[in-house]
This record gives sequence, structure tokens and C-alpha cells, in this order.
Amino acid sequence: MSRSIYEGLTQLGGATVQPASPEEAVLERVPNPHPGTGYLVRFAAPEFTSLCPITGQPDFAHLVIDYVPGDWLVESKSLKLYLTSFRDHGAFHEACTVGIAKRLETELKPVWLRIGGYWYPRGGIPIDVFYQTGPVPDGVWVPDQGVAAYRGRG
Amino acid sequence: MSRSIYEGLTQLGGATVQPASPEEAVLERVPNPHPGTGYLVRFAAPEFTSLCPITGQPDFAHLVIDYVPGDWLVESKSLKLYLTSFRDHGAFHEACTVGIAKRLETELKPVWLRIGGYWYPRGGIPIDVFYQTGPVPDGVWVPDQGVAAYRGRG
Amino acid sequence: MSRSIYEGLTQLGGATVQPASPEEAVLERVPNPHPGTGYLVRFAAPEFTSLCPITGQPDFAHLVIDYVPGDWLVESKSLKLYLTSFRDHGAFHEACTVGIAKRLETELKPVWLRIGGYWYPRGGIPIDVFYQTGPVPDGVWVPDQGVAAYRGRG
Amino acid sequence: MSRSIYEGLTQLGGATVQPASPEEAVLERVPNPHPGTGYLVRFAAPEFTSLCPITGQPDFAHLVIDYVPGDWLVESKSLKLYLTSFRDHGAFHEACTVGIAKRLETELKPVWLRIGGYWYPRGGIPIDVFYQTGPVPDGVWVPDQGVAAYRGRG
Amino acid sequence: MSRSIYEGLTQLGGATVQPASPEEAVLERVPNPHPGTGYLVRFAAPEFTSLCPITGQPDFAHLVIDYVPGDWLVESKSLKLYLTSFRDHGAFHEACTVGIAKRLETELKPVWLRIGGYWYPRGGIPIDVFYQTGPVPDGVWVPDQGVAAYRGRG
Amino acid sequence: MSRSIYEGLTQLGGATVQPASPEEAVLERVPNPHPGTGYLVRFAAPEFTSLCPITGQPDFAHLVIDYVPGDWLVESKSLKLYLTSFRDHGAFHEACTVGIAKRLETELKPVWLRIGGYWYPRGGIPIDVFYQTGPVPDGVWVPDQGVAAYRGRG
Amino acid sequence: MSRSIYEGLTQLGGATVQPASPEEAVLERVPNPHPGTGYLVRFAAPEFTSLCPITGQPDFAHLVIDYVPGDWLVESKSLKLYLTSFRDHGAFHEACTVGIAKRLETELKPVWLRIGGYWYPRGGIPIDVFYQTGPVPDGVWVPDQGVAAYRGRG
Amino acid sequence: MSRSIYEGLTQLGGATVQPASPEEAVLERVPNPHPGTGYLVRFAAPEFTSLCPITGQPDFAHLVIDYVPGDWLVESKSLKLYLTSFRDHGAFHEACTVGIAKRLETELKPVWLRIGGYWYPRGGIPIDVFYQTGPVPDGVWVPDQGVAAYRGRG
Amino acid sequence: MSRSIYEGLTQLGGATVQPASPEEAVLERVPNPHPGTGYLVRFAAPEFTSLCPITGQPDFAHLVIDYVPGDWLVESKSLKLYLTSFRDHGAFHEACTVGIAKRLETELKPVWLRIGGYWYPRGGIPIDVFYQTGPVPDGVWVPDQGVAAYRGRG
Amino acid sequence: MSRSIYEGLTQLGGATVQPASPEEAVLERVPNPHPGTGYLVRFAAPEFTSLCPITGQPDFAHLVIDYVPGDWLVESKSLKLYLTSFRDHGAFHEACTVGIAKRLETELKPVWLRIGGYWYPRGGIPIDVFYQTGPVPDGVWVPDQGVAAYRGRG
Ligand SMILES: [Ca+2]
Ligand SMILES: [Ca+2]
Ligand SMILES: [Ca+2]
Ligand SMILES: [Ca+2]
Ligand SMILES: [Ca+2]
Ligand SMILES: [Ca+2]
Ligand SMILES: [Ca+2]
Ligand SMILES: [Ca+2]
Ligand SMILES: [Ca+2]
Ligand SMILES: [Ca+2]
Ligand SMILES: [Ca+2]
Ligand SMILES: [Ca+2]
Ligand SMILES: [Ca+2]
Ligand SMILES: [Ca+2]
Ligand SMILES: [Ca+2]
Ligand SMILES: [Ca+2]
Repeated sequence: MSRSIYEGLTQLGGATVQPASPEEAVLERVPNPHPGTGYLVRFAAPEFTSLCPITGQPDFAHLVIDYVPGDWLVESKSLKLYLTSFRDHGAFHEACTVGIAKRLETELKPVWLRIGGYWYPRGGIPIDVFYQTGPVPDGVWVPDQGVAAYRGRG
Repeated sequence: MSRSIYEGLTQLGGATVQPASPEEAVLERVPNPHPGTGYLVRFAAPEFTSLCPITGQPDFAHLVIDYVPGDWLVESKSLKLYLTSFRDHGAFHEACTVGIAKRLETELKPVWLRIGGYWYPRGGIPIDVFYQTGPVPDGVWVPDQGVAAYRGRG
Repeated sequence: MSRSIYEGLTQLGGATVQPASPEEAVLERVPNPHPGTGYLVRFAAPEFTSLCPITGQPDFAHLVIDYVPGDWLVESKSLKLYLTSFRDHGAFHEACTVGIAKRLETELKPVWLRIGGYWYPRGGIPIDVFYQTGPVPDGVWVPDQGVAAYRGRG
Repeated sequence: MSRSIYEGLTQLGGATVQPASPEEAVLERVPNPHPGTGYLVRFAAPEFTSLCPITGQPDFAHLVIDYVPGDWLVESKSLKLYLTSFRDHGAFHEACTVGIAKRLETELKPVWLRIGGYWYPRGGIPIDVFYQTGPVPDGVWVPDQGVAAYRGRG
Repeated sequence: MSRSIYEGLTQLGGATVQPASPEEAVLERVPNPHPGTGYLVRFAAPEFTSLCPITGQPDFAHLVIDYVPGDWLVESKSLKLYLTSFRDHGAFHEACTVGIAKRLETELKPVWLRIGGYWYPRGGIPIDVFYQTGPVPDGVWVPDQGVAAYRGRG
Repeated sequence: MSRSIYEGLTQLGGATVQPASPEEAVLERVPNPHPGTGYLVRFAAPEFTSLCPITGQPDFAHLVIDYVPGDWLVESKSLKLYLTSFRDHGAFHEACTVGIAKRLETELKPVWLRIGGYWYPRGGIPIDVFYQTGPVPDGVWVPDQGVAAYRGRG
Repeated sequence: MSRSIYEGLTQLGGATVQPASPEEAVLERVPNPHPGTGYLVRFAAPEFTSLCPITGQPDFAHLVIDYVPGDWLVESKSLKLYLTSFRDHGAFHEACTVGIAKRLETELKPVWLRIGGYWYPRGGIPIDVFYQTGPVPDGVWVPDQGVAAYRGRG
Repeated sequence: MSRSIYEGLTQLGGATVQPASPEEAVLERVPNPHPGTGYLVRFAAPEFTSLCPITGQPDFAHLVIDYVPGDWLVESKSLKLYLTSFRDHGAFHEACTVGIAKRLETELKPVWLRIGGYWYPRGGIPIDVFYQTGPVPDGVWVPDQGVAAYRGRG
Repeated sequence: MSRSIYEGLTQLGGATVQPASPEEAVLERVPNPHPGTGYLVRFAAPEFTSLCPITGQPDFAHLVIDYVPGDWLVESKSLKLYLTSFRDHGAFHEACTVGIAKRLETELKPVWLRIGGYWYPRGGIPIDVFYQTGPVPDGVWVPDQGVAAYRGRG
Repeated sequence: MSRSIYEGLTQLGGATVQPASPEEAVLERVPNPHPGTGYLVRFAAPEFTSLCPITGQPDFAHLVIDYVPGDWLVESKSLKLYLTSFRDHGAFHEACTVGIAKRLETELKPVWLRIGGYWYPRGGIPIDVFYQTGPVPDGVWVPDQGVAAYRGRG
């Protein structure tokens, strides 16, 4: 795999310009180095934060994104900047988690994709959101995400 | 997703009035922001307490509720108040756990729902209750709840 | 669910009379408050002890019993007394574990039942015994028992 | 140790009458079976709940109480009823935790006592309160309480 | 402890107005309900985020703050808002962690205080910062913070 | 189950005579107390050691053996002595692990059997070997062996 | 160290005769193979059971015994039989735990000894008892017993 | 299994000559001692490192390789040297992980093979790559790899 | 703290030039933002690798470095590059670990410093090396490093 | 540190000749590369086995050895061969563990040394043995060995 597949990229290796909102964020992609091979890529993003659309107070989540690439891989720095762009964005837990997945579907056209959003507790009750684009493709290996259950105290 | 879907709500953002019993509790709902998409929402509620209907002594449980929304999401503050309303309510473990699920089925008409009730030990033997409305819907991702097994001591 | 379903019980709430053997123990039952609903009840019993039939020395086990109730629930105090009645009873690990399950099948006529017996090591090698009455019923949720594997030392 | 030291007790083995408030709860005590021996007794109470004095909403805590007995042991059923009596009582975390310790000091006149209060999160931030009556007495063994740190999600 | 000690507070129970910077944040305090008693209060704040002063990119930390109150307790909602006010503030890990402690020292004049700042990895290497105002006061119980060590992968 | 099923045994309860090699070891068996019932027996053997056939240096493994008995149970003391007989025996990891399973198949004629061999690292890389005689029989419960993954350091 | 130090023993290697009560149990001892060397011996006994002196119901505990030998080691089979002799013996948690330690002190005259008794919960509240004969001797290494804290559920 | 199957090997037992690149590395193989038996071999390699092809900076991964042998086993020392040969090789996470699997497929012609690549975080976000050659063969036992999920801090 | 303290740095924010050996690596430093305050900075470096000076084969370690700064902080990117510079350097475990600490002492003149080197196993036996410059300074808080013990398998 | 300190060694890098008993084993040593510096070296040896001197049956232990070197380091391959030489050696747990330490004291003349022997259970009760040569030297850092407590089952 040569370096040239990264030639058109604007974010990787350049100065980091943080997009101000998810809408402004540009998800860049590179050709899949193993097209036609059914494999899974997992990103764990424990540093996600957005705002509550009602109160404006910050929310936090640990996100895990799994996808089976089609023609494209997401360039990981642009993914990071996209996730960071929610910092000043208001969104409910369910809408935000599923919305990230749908944006990635649109941009990457993956064979399959899923997201687990593990949100920090509010009112003593954490919410998790689990979404996938459909059944796991035949023959592809998709391990559990293995994020620890919330345990309160003790 | 706009804020307007929350316009008819009476509990969120207002003064908290604790309902005195499950019957008095009002479960409010908001339109599903992703209708027709098969995703799972999980609530972990480690602060649940009710009363033993025989002795009147308190019981405690860690509850985990999973559902695939249909047209509606449950509004989380009203869910919290509903769960809190069991504080002075007498119910056996099996009846209480399944009963909460059935109330949610009635109110939310979810595509699918399940509940795990992990009760604190009585007589040295904890009881867990696991209920779901039927088989997991095709293509929906429903991870294990991952609550630790009871281990006694040592 | 009214208290009346417990009216015929002889052990719950009365003086505790420990049965001297499994044969003498009376397993009491109450009507299933949710008949026709496929749900699972789990008991974790980490305080089980019996005797080795060859040497008379005590054996210890951590038992976990899962069942899908039919018309009846087992009354939990009578279950505890039944398990305690093995204290002076000689039985091999395999026979004892499966025998408890079969007694419960006879008494409760559950839709389905299983038992995991996690015995303490003898000769450095612990034995686990896993039995179920047949395949998991369709649409019922039966989580892993999640008892930790034996690890020796280190 | 004979049974007679329990003769004057009014709660153990009798019908359970739940006191309505901490003030009404009676902490009973029995003579220390090993007076003059410096040993530690630890109670873990993971089922504690009280009310927020501002909002009236329930709070939950996992409490661990350690003490070195002087002339008296606390009778454990009366301790349980005392802790349960906070169910309808409003108290801030810091005041409640230290107040329980001070009540026990007054009633038991222990050689030494400490309490760890591990409260469930509010606003995403759990509070722990740690109090002891003074330095650990010379030669007495006081292990760590070992309650897991709060970890949020992920 | 009466509710009146909260009478002068401006943030608790009112509308939440997020301060825009640490300088604008007002740390409110209430009288210590147990003045003269050496006890420890611990806050775990797993939802902390600030900005890198060089790159402007977000940093994340899990903070744990321990203090022995003097005349004052910090009001916990104002503490939360103070911590949240770092969201748009640039600060290096070492300076930020110790700076939070010093601000609390100034405002609360505690008998003793310490902070553990457990920062998420940058360049594959996480930084932790540990600061306390001096030796642990005699006779006060200060358990380990117990935050898990960073383990990389595997 | 009577004691008589053990009458023909030569090792249990007698003096322990350690067989010098796997070939000399006698695996004894007793009638299955629940013939025709599909249940699983698990042995965890964390004290296994053999020799490297190339270097003669010791190898170590944690073995877990699962089987569904047919007409016979293996007598556990003879199993222990059989496993111990590898102490001076040279065998590669893959051959040794599968070979133990095949010996048990021959001797016990089980309905089904599997073995997990979790070998200690050599050259920094541990090898695990997993073998079963075929698909899990219908309706039999075969939990995960749950042995922790190797993690290196950190 | 020769085998002869075991010559006067009556229990090790002979037929096991279970003593019927702690009073009948004989604790045998052998000469310390390293007299004058300050080292610690730890026994973990997770299979302990006794009876409640009030109700006659079984109690269970995980015991850990540490001692620094003087002239004698306890012979471990006799220790096991002594612990097993509590099976039909009524004793409160505090009295039982400290009493075992005092019996060992009398029999072994160790340089130092301690016991941790980790009892299974009753009324939802487990009791631990920690006793040692005095301060840890200078220069002797006495690690934490490391028994996991009780956590209830979740 | 005789030693002779190792006779043609050039790396095992000889002086270790580290290949300078994956291309130069020779993967040696030995005949499968149990041909026709469907069993799984797992290698855990927590000491893997390569270079970033863009920056030249080191990357690290924990790799786990599972395969069902056909006619051949991989000789483990040659596997180690092959993995070590990536030390000065530039490769992206996705390409490198899948590429190792494909090389093994070519050399070993296994019945089935999979690899899990658990990479250390870059930009705070670790990437995992999961690849298998197709569906798990019928009747073969392939346990989860069980590598812990990445958790950030706290 | 202003950005100007970073003005003289040559590595941070510039192109990354990997030093070829520890001798060539330049450890840069910045003024301590809290001079005179006794606080601890901890770096966890799980991605360390060097070479065996006898065989030339790679070694791996998880390093944790703690120091109490004097006038200087180490700039973290230069620390990372210094650690990375051991990639082609031969050093024994004991010498390498202590040598890193001594280099940091020379460059930073810290009030106090320690290092824990947790090396991956060779010959089945991992080596850890623990060094500090002297007793922990009075009043400074130095928590355990908390790296998990090596456990082999099982 | 040059390679020459290894010049007189007879085991490292040569053919491995396993000594037949501890008496025949030769512990080789090399000059301490940091003489006069107080640092700790830890070896974890989870693959230790010896024989019971009464029954001849194998015993297993996880050993952890810590020492502060004086003029000498132990050469690690010779240490491994020494530990392996107990494979056919009969020794009681207490005598064996302390005896290994005393042999190392004699050979290495360390500033300080300790050993933890964590033996696998016999009769359901594991024994641990902890020995050190005296108090921890001033200013040397000696972390806990952190070996998990034995937990039986459940
Ligand atoms: Ca902002
Ligand atoms: Ca009430
Ligand atoms: Ca247990
Ligand atoms: Ca009895
Ligand atoms: Ca054993
Ligand atoms: Ca909360
Ligand atoms: Ca976290
Ligand atoms: Ca690692
Ligand atoms: Ca209980
Ligand atoms: Ca809990
Ligand atoms: Ca990173
Ligand atoms: Ca070496
Ligand atoms: Ca190189
Ligand atoms: Ca190794
Ligand atoms: Ca082990
Ligand atoms: Ca045993």
C-alpha cells in the first residue's frame, strides 16, 4: 500500500483546524487497501462531549464505532475532528448517537456499520444507544464491544 | 431534531413532583427522532427500591431496561419518577420486574423491550428476573447487559 | 398481585424448621403472577454444602438455578431450606447437581429449567456441572450465568 | 458465649417494627464477648437510601462502618433498622454520613469507629465521605474498605 | 442541620447559568455542619475537559478532589459549574490540575486538600498529576483514590 | 446413587501410585448416574506440566475439559493421575492438548467432548489450543470456559 | 528438613476422622523448620460454615489466617479438620472469628497471628471481623489479605 | 508425534537471525500432527510494533491470531521472527493487520484463519481490526479472543 | 501560565525528528509553573521497546515515571522521543530502567523521582525494576503505580 | 554497561543443561551495573512445581522474588534453572519457600530480599508464605506484589 492514497487529503499532516459544528466537519476518506475483503474496523472514542439541547449543559459519552469498509476507509484524523465538532452542538443522546452513524453511512457507504454510545449518567441513570445498519454480514467477524456495564457505587 | 418535540411535556424542566405510587406516575413520551430505524436504547437504574408486600421491609434492585423504540421514546425524567414511585409500593421481585416492563409496553408500544432485574440478596440468595417481549427483532443489535454475577464473599 | 396467593404456605413467615434431608424438605409453590409470559427467574446460592458419600467430608458449591415458570413459582424460603437440607447428605457432584434440577422439574413443572453447579476444588481440580431440560424456549431471554472461571493461583 | 447476653433485646427474633425516623430508632447492644481485645467489626450496607433535604428526591449510598468494640457490640438487626429509618429522612451527604457515626459513638462508646459513605452520583459527580473518631488504635488491624472507585463510563 | 445554611446561595436550585471561564465562576460555600471534626469529602469528576493552550484541541481528564473541611463546605453545584467552566479554557495538565486545587484552597480555606488529575493519553502517554496541601492531618482517614492505572492495550 | 458403582475402582481411596507416563496411566470410569440426560461436566486443571520434546525444558498449561457423558463418567482421581503423568513426557502444545482429548474419547465414549489448553508463554507468545469432537449437541448447555486472555504487561 | 518431624502426628496420612465439635478437634503441630526466622504463613479457607446460635440456621464465611510461627507450625490437615468441626457448632460471627484465633494462639504460641473473617450477608449486610494479637512484628512482611469488598448487586 | 517433523527447519534451535523486513522473513511450517481434525490454534502476540508510513513514528499493537490447521502448522519461532520483522516496516493499521493474515493464508493454507489487531491509541482513539477468512467452519470451537476493551481513564 | 515558557523549545510543534539513540536524544524542559509546590507528575509509557544486548532481539516494557518537579518540567514530546530512541539500543532490563531515571535526574534536577519498569516475560519470568532517588519527600502525595501483577495463564 | 560482565557465565547463551536438584543447580551472578544505588528487582515465576515429601505428588506455586542488589545481580537464566530444579525435589511449602530465599541470600549477598510463595490449594486451603530478610531498607521503593487473593468459587 503506497502513501499516494493519502494524496488528496486536506487534514492529515496539515495544521489542525477544528470545525465549529458537525455540519462544517469534513469526513475524508481513502481507498480501502483490501477492497472486497470482509473485515471490521473499530474506533473507540472515550473523549466525546456534546451539549444538552434543553439546558445547554455538557453531556459526555464513550463511543465505539464498528464498520466493514466498502470502497473507502475513513481517514482517522478527520473522524476525530468530526467527533470533536460536537463540542458546542446540542443533541439528545438517542438522536446524536444514531445521527453520527447515519453521517458515516452517507459518507463511507460501508458494507455495514454500527455504533455504541455509552453516555454518562444524568439523574443517576445512564443511557446507552446501540444502532447497526442491519444484520451482521455473513462470514464477517464482529466481536462484542465489551464496554463495562454501569455499576453505580459499591 | 428540534426542541419542539418536547413541548407537551409536563415534568421535564419543571418542578419535580414525585408521584406517590406507580399508578399515579405519568410516563411521558416524545416522538422517536429516527422512526423506522431499528436501534436499541438502554437505561441502567441502580437506585431502585420497593417494599416487600409481606413484611413491609425495603427491597433493592439494580434494573436495566432495553427497548427498540417504535413511534415513541420515553422521556427519561418521567421514567426516573416512575421508577422512584415504587419506593412506598409493595411488590414481589418477579411481579414487580415484569410489571414495569408491561407498563412500558402499554405506554410506549415499542417494537421490542426487555428488562433485567438484579435484586439484592434475601436469605443469602439474590433473585434475578429476565423478561423480554419476544425474540430479538431481526437485524437489531442487542448487547448483553453485562451486570456482574453475584459472588457472595471471598 | 395480592397476598392471598401465599395463603397456603407453611414455611414463609412461620418459624423456620430446617428439614433434616432433601427427602424431608417440602418445596412450596405459589401461582405464577404472569402465567403465559416467557420470563426467567435466577437464584444464586453461594452457600451450598453437602457431604462426600465416600469420605463423609464436606463439599461446597456455588449453585445458580434458572427457570422459566409455568403455572408455578417456587417460594424462595422453601427453596432455601431445601438447599440447606443437603448439609448432612452424601452425594457426588454430578449426581447432586442434576438431582436438584430434577426435583425442581417434578415439583414446579417449569417451561424450562437449568442449573450450574460450581464446586470448590478437590485434588486441585474443581468440577462444574451444567444441566438444562432442553433447548432454550424460543423468544425467552436467558443470559449467561457469568460465574468466574477457576484460576488457581497467580 | 451464651445466648443469655441477648436476653434483654426487643428487636432480634421478634416481629420487625420499622422505626419511622432515625430519632425513633433504638440501637440495641449486647456485651462484647471479647472485652479488652482490640478487634475490628465491619458492616457493609449497600442498601442505604435517604432523601435530599432540598428537593425531597431519594439519594442512595453504599455505607461501610468499622468499629473496635469497647464494652458493647451493636446488635445487627437493630443497626439494620436504624439504617433503614433514613428512608424518609432528609439529610445532606456530609451531615448524614458523619451523623450516623456520631450516633453510634454515643450509643456504643466504641474504642474507635469510622464510616465510609459512598454516594451515588448527582450532577455526574459522586461524593464520598470518610470519617473516623481519631487515629487507628495501636496494634489494631484496620484493612482498607476496598470499595471500587467511581469510573463513569467506558 | 437545617436548610437555612443554604439561604444565601445563588446557584443551587436556581436556573443554571454556565460561567464562561474559571475566572467568572463563583464557588459558593456553606457552613460545615460538623465544624471541628476531621473528616474527608471526596468528589469524583469523570467529565472534565479543557483545551490545549498550544493547539486549541480538547483535553480530557478524570479528576478526584479530596478535602478536609474547615469552616466551609463547597456547594456541589457551584463546584460542578466551576469545573465545567474549563471547557473553553486553555491550560497545561500540570498547571490546570494544581490550579484547581489552589483556587479551592483560597475559597474554602480547608484544613487540608488534595487533587488527582488523571489525563487521557496524548502521544500514547497519559499524564497524572497529584497534589496535596501538605501532610495528611493526624487522625484523619484518607483512603487511596483507587483510580485504575492506564494499561494501553491487551 | 449408591456407592457400589465405585466398587471396581483401583485408584480412588487407595494408596496413590503415580503412573510414570500417559501410556501407563489407567483412566477409570463409573456408570453415569443420569444416563440419557444431556448434561455437561467441566474439569479445570490449572496444575498441568509436561516437557518440551526438543529442549526437555518444562512447559506449563491451564487445561479445561468439558464433556457430555454417555454411559460413563471419568473417575476424577484417575483423571488427575493421568494428567499428572505428563510431568516427564515430551509433547508439543498442539499434539499434547488434542491427544488428551482423544484419549478421553477412546476411554469414555462421551456424547461430546472438548478441551481448551491455555499454555504459558514461550518467546513472549502463549499458544492456546481449542478442540471439540464436533458441534455442540442440540439442547445441551455449554457455557464459555471464561479463561482470561493473556495480556502481557501493563 | 526431614520427614521425621511429622512422626508423632495422628491425623496426617491416616484415616480422616472428623471431630464432632471444636472442643474435640485436636490441633497438631510440627517443629518450625526455620525457627528464629520472621516469616508469615497464610491460610485461605473459603469453605467455612457454622450455625447461628439463635436460629440454628447455617452461616458461611471465608476465613484468612496469618501467623508468624514461633517454635511450631500448625499441621495443615489438623487445621482443616478443626475448621470443619464448626459445622454443627453455634457461634456468633464476632465470637467465632476471634475464638478461632485465640485457640490457635494457645496451641501454637506464635510470634504473632491475625484472622480475617468475611461472613456472607444476613439481612443484606455482611459482617467482617478482623483481629490480630498485637502490632505487626518489626521487619516481618505482612501483605494485605486482599479479599474483595462486598458489593451487593450491579 | 516424532521429532523428525522438525528436521527440515532452519530457524528453530539454530542461531536467531532476525529478518530485516516482512518480505525477507521465512515462515516455516511443520506437518499437522492431527490432520483432518478440526481444532483451533491461538497465538497472542502482545509485543508487536511497526512504523507509521506517514510519520515514521512507531506504532504498537497487541495481535491475536487464530487458525484451524490444514496440512500444516506454523513453526512458532518463525512466526515470532516474522512478526518481529515489522519493526522497521511502515504500514497502516488496517493494511498491516489484514496483510499478516493474508501472508499466513498463503503460507499455511489453513482451513480457516482470523486475526484481531488491537492497536494502541493515536489521537486518543485506538483502532482495532478484525478479519477472518470466512464463516467459522462447522463444528469447530472458536472462543472469543477476550481482549479487554479500551477504557481511556477513570 | 503563558505560552512563552515554551518559546525556546525545538521539538514541540515542529516536525518530529526521531533521535537515533538515547545519547542523541535531547530532553527539553520548561519552567515549573508551580515552583516551590510539592506535587507529583506521572507518565505511563506502555509502548517502550529496546534490544537485548546479547541476542539483539527486541525487549518490551511498560514504564511508569513519577517525579516531583524542582525548577523544571520535562516537555512531554521530548520525553516521548527520548523513550522512543531506545528502539535500536541494546540494554539489560536493570541497567536500562535505572539509566533512564538517572538521565532524567541529570536533566531535570527534580526534587525526587522514581521509575517502575514492568518488562514482558523472557523464559516465562518477567522482571520488574523499581528505583527512586530516595525517600518520598515529606508531605508529597505519591500513590501506588497500580500496574497489574503478572499472572501467567488461567 | 558492557557485555563483558557476562563473560564468566556458563549457562547463559550455552546449551541448557537442567540441574537435577537444587543442590546441583549453580546460581550465577554478574556485577551490579548500578552498585550503591538502592533499587529493587522483581522476578515473577508462575511456573514453579515441586513434590510433596510425604506423598510424592506434585505441588505448584506462583513465586515472586524481590531483592535489592548489593554487588551482584543474579543471572536470570541460572535463576530459572535453579527454580526448575525443584521439579523432582520434595519439600514442604513453608520450608521450600524460605529455603529458596536463604539460598539466594547466600549466593547474592543482597542488601535486602523477600519472597512470596503463593501455593495452589490442597484440601481446599491454599497456603501462602511471605519472608523477607528484615525491614525494608530506608528510601528503597518496594511495591506490593499484588498477587490476587484466593477466592474459591463463585
Ligand atoms: Ca465551546
Ligand atoms: Ca416512604
Ligand atoms: Ca465464594
Ligand atoms: Ca451436621
Ligand atoms: Ca485441591
Ligand atoms: Ca448523575
Ligand atoms: Ca472513562
Ligand atoms: Ca499491554
Ligand atoms: Ca442476605
Ligand atoms: Ca451497587
Ligand atoms: Ca494517544
Ligand atoms: Ca535476556
Ligand atoms: Ca530499527
Ligand atoms: Ca516467555
Ligand atoms: Ca495461574
Ligand atoms: Ca483443594
